[in-house]
Amino acid sequence: MTRKIPVVEEITKANDEIAAINRTRLDEAGVVALNLMASPGAGKTSLIERTVPRLAENLRVGVVGGDIATTLDAERAADAGAIAVQITTGGACHLDAPMVRNALAQLPLEELDVLVVENVGNLICPASFALGTHANVLVASVPEGDDKPFKHPRIYRGVDVLVINKIDLLPYVDFDMRRFHEGVRALNEELATFELSCRTGDGVEPWVEWVRQRVGACATAARGAS
Amino acid sequence: MTRKIPVVEEITKANDEIAAINRTRLDEAGVVALNLMASPGAGKTSLIERTVPRLAENLRVGVVGGDIATTLDAERAADAGAIAVQITTGGACHLDAPMVRNALAQLPLEELDVLVVENVGNLICPASFALGTHANVLVASVPEGDDKPFKHPRIYRGVDVLVINKIDLLPYVDFDMRRFHEGVRALNEELATFELSCRTGDGVEPWVEWVRQRVGACATAARGAS
Repeated sequence: MTRKIPVVEEITKANDEIAAINRTRLDEAGVVALNLMASPGAGKTSLIERTVPRLAENLRVGVVGGDIATTLDAERAADAGAIAVQITTGGACHLDAPMVRNALAQLPLEELDVLVVENVGNLICPASFALGTHANVLVASVPEGDDKPFKHPRIYRGVDVLVINKIDLLPYVDFDMRRFHEGVRALNEELATFELSCRTGDGVEPWVEWVRQRVGACATAARGAS
Repeated sequence: MTRKIPVVEEITKANDEIAAINRTRLDEAGVVALNLMASPGAGKTSLIERTVPRLAENLRVGVVGGDIATTLDAERAADAGAIAVQITTGGACHLDAPMVRNALAQLPLEELDVLVVENVGNLICPASFALGTHANVLVASVPEGDDKPFKHPRIYRGVDVLVINKIDLLPYVDFDMRRFHEGVRALNEELATFELSCRTGDGVEPWVEWVRQRVGACATAARGAS
C-alpha cells in the first residue's frame, strides 16, 4: 500500500516544470538527449565508451555523468570522445531536472547533436524524476538475474529502450533470457530491446544504429517544424 | 556540495528513535539481527539461501525480506528453512525502522536466535536509515566492477562485514580484486571481508562461521548481563 505524500507530489511537480524547460532548451539547440539508467555496475559507462566513438564518426556527442562521489565516469566519457560534464550529487540517489539544467548550462549545446545523460546507479529513485530528455534507456545486465523486471516494475514500465548488457556471461550464470523477456513484455510490450556485450562488442551495432535513427528522426522533425 | 535539509534530518532522527526501540526489542528476545544491503542482483537472496540451511542446523533463523513489489524473496527464504516475513515497500527505495518494527511484530522473536533483514536492492538510500539491527552486511558482486567502493563510499564506510559474491565469474570479467580491496580499505580499514560464490558454494563456510560466532558472542554477553 502506497500513501501519497503531499510534499513528494510538490517536489515531483516542481521537477517536472524544470524538466519541461530542459526539453525546450534541448529542442531549440537541436540536441536529442537520452537518460541512461541502471543498477550500479550494469555497464552504463561501458556502454557510453562503446557508443560514443561510433556516434562521433558523424555526430557531435555530449555526456552528462551523474555520480555520487567521483568524476571517474566523466573522465571515461571524455576519453571516448565526448564533451563531458560531471554532476556530483553529494549523496543524492538520482539525478533531477535542476541538476541537469545546471549541467546543460555548462555545455555548448548548439555544437552538439546528441547528449547522453548517465543517471546515478540505482533502479528505483531515478524512475520518479523526469529530466527533460527525449528517451529513457535502461541498461540491465545478465548477472543481475532474470527476476529484475518482476522486482523493479516501475522502471521497466517507464523506459523506451532496454539494453541487456554482459551477454558474454550467459554461459556462466543462471539467467533465463526467455523468462526475462516475458517479464519485460508483461510490463512494457512496445519496448525496443538490444542484447549486447560492452566487453566483447557483440551486438553493439544495432543499438548504435537505433541511437543514430532516433537522432535523425528528431532532426528531420525539427526541420519540418521550422 | 551537500545541503543539509531540515526535513530530512527530522525524518532520520525519528527513524533513529524507532531503530533504538527495535534494538531493545531484539535484545530482550535474544535475537542477533543482520541488515543485508546490496545492489539489485548482487545476491542477497542467494546468500540467504546458502546461509539459512547451515545456520538452521543449530540456530533458529528468521528472515525479513524487503522488496518493492513481490514476495519472491520471502518465498525463497522460507524454502531455505527460515521463518520469513515480507515487507513490500510499495515503491520505497529502502527499508526504514518503522517498517522493520512492523515486521518484528509479525515474528515469534522469542523463538529465534538470528534474524536476517534483507534490505531493498540499492547501494545508496539504505545506508542512511538505521533499522536497529546489530550488524550491517554489504553484499558486493564481482560483475558490478572493482570501482564500487570509490563510487559508493558512504555504504562501504557504514558496514561491519563485506561479502564479495560471484567469485566464480572472476575469470570472465575485468575485476581487479587488489584494486577493489584497496578501495575498501581506504574507506573502512577494519572491515571483515569474505570472498565467496553463492552459485558454487565456494567460500560460504567462513562467512557462516562469522555469523555463528557473532550470534554466540551476543548470547554470551546477554547471559553475562542478566
